[in-house]
Amino acid sequence: MSDSAPSRSKTPPLPPWRSALARALHRNRSRPYSRYFQLATITPAGRPANRTVVFRGWLPDTNSLTLITDQRSAKVTDIAAHPWAEACWYFTSTREQFRLAGPSQVVSAADLTLAPARQTAWAELSDRARQQFYWPQPAQPRSPAAAFAPPENQPENQPETPPDNFSLVLLTPRQVDHLELRGDPQNRTLYTCQPDDTWQVEAVNP
Amino acid sequence: MSDSAPSRSKTPPLPPWRSALARALHRNRSRPYSRYFQLATITPAGRPANRTVVFRGWLPDTNSLTLITDQRSAKVTDIAAHPWAEACWYFTSTREQFRLAGPSQVVSAADLTLAPARQTAWAELSDRARQQFYWPQPAQPRSPAAAFAPPENQPENQPETPPDNFSLVLLTPRQVDHLELRGDPQNRTLYTCQPDDTWQVEAVNP
Repeated sequence: MSDSAPSRSKTPPLPPWRSALARALHRNRSRPYSRYFQLATITPAGRPANRTVVFRGWLPDTNSLTLITDQRSAKVTDIAAHPWAEACWYFTSTREQFRLAGPSQVVSAADLTLAPARQTAWAELSDRARQQFYWPQPAQPRSPAAAFAPPENQPENQPETPPDNFSLVLLTPRQVDHLELRGDPQNRTLYTCQPDDTWQVEAVNP
Repeated sequence: MSDSAPSRSKTPPLPPWRSALARALHRNRSRPYSRYFQLATITPAGRPANRTVVFRGWLPDTNSLTLITDQRSAKVTDIAAHPWAEACWYFTSTREQFRLAGPSQVVSAADLTLAPARQTAWAELSDRARQQFYWPQPAQPRSPAAAFAPPENQPENQPETPPDNFSLVLLTPRQVDHLELRGDPQNRTLYTCQPDDTWQVEAVNP
């Protein structure tokens, strides 16, 4: 091994859309909702579902976006039935949109391989966000206020110990469609993952 | 007919979610992107698709949201294959989300019944927005700049005459899920259209 080939060269290069997305996140960072995007899935009944989620960063050493979910959330059964999902991420300040499509996966308490990532995501939540995982069953008739009361009798609300219903969701893009509205005409770039895991980049008409 | 029953009482009452959505639009009106939402559809291949669209108002005397599309856009074939769609509309200032699900429909140049609505939508566009309908085929390899040049040789770019590829999309909600993040705990209301077209309203757990 020569000096000119250090061991870190084994790390595969970031796909080209990562830098465009990193730039958008940076340039829109003053607006907290720039970390929100809309995740579309397909329900077991075959209908589209769409909701706002919060980007929780990258799964380390991968190109998978992470978000969190309650295991009781409908998106868990959606993903089990139809793993392919599409995120639509619009940045209001720079007026650009990323559509990120690929397989998604739920990392539940039963997943031992990714337990560290799940643990880290739990530890990084605010107390208030953690509390939601102790709320009563989502989408059921509204429970009395006491059912939402903070811990005391919930000593398990600890940064160290995620509850069983706390899960990660991973989305691993295989296609990215980046549209910049500010161009005249607008700029649009398609990134497509090839079978050999390299990325094809193409400027297309908006 | 008595004075106390004027003829306009025949108009069916607005569904209850309309006032909540009108309030959100009003309270977020200082931010132009408050009229943008994300529309999820299903592609002919059975995958979810998700993109940002612009709310163009209500089809008169209905509860159908209107937006515009190019007939060459992928959402046209999505809707033809799977009419059910779900909009996710997040308001950044008031921190509330509406998920609006129901059948959608493309109103093309061939639709004579809704031709006036299509004509009105075209007339209300900015010149720049109208120009996009004369651009080359979307998602194809980038055309040279000249292909995007404004009219002159396109005398048909007139407010009176929509081009054949200009279409309306209607989304007629049958279910609306309204989540207000600002509550503590958050407030969530489900509106469900019944077979007799009345609306059931239910407070549920977030």
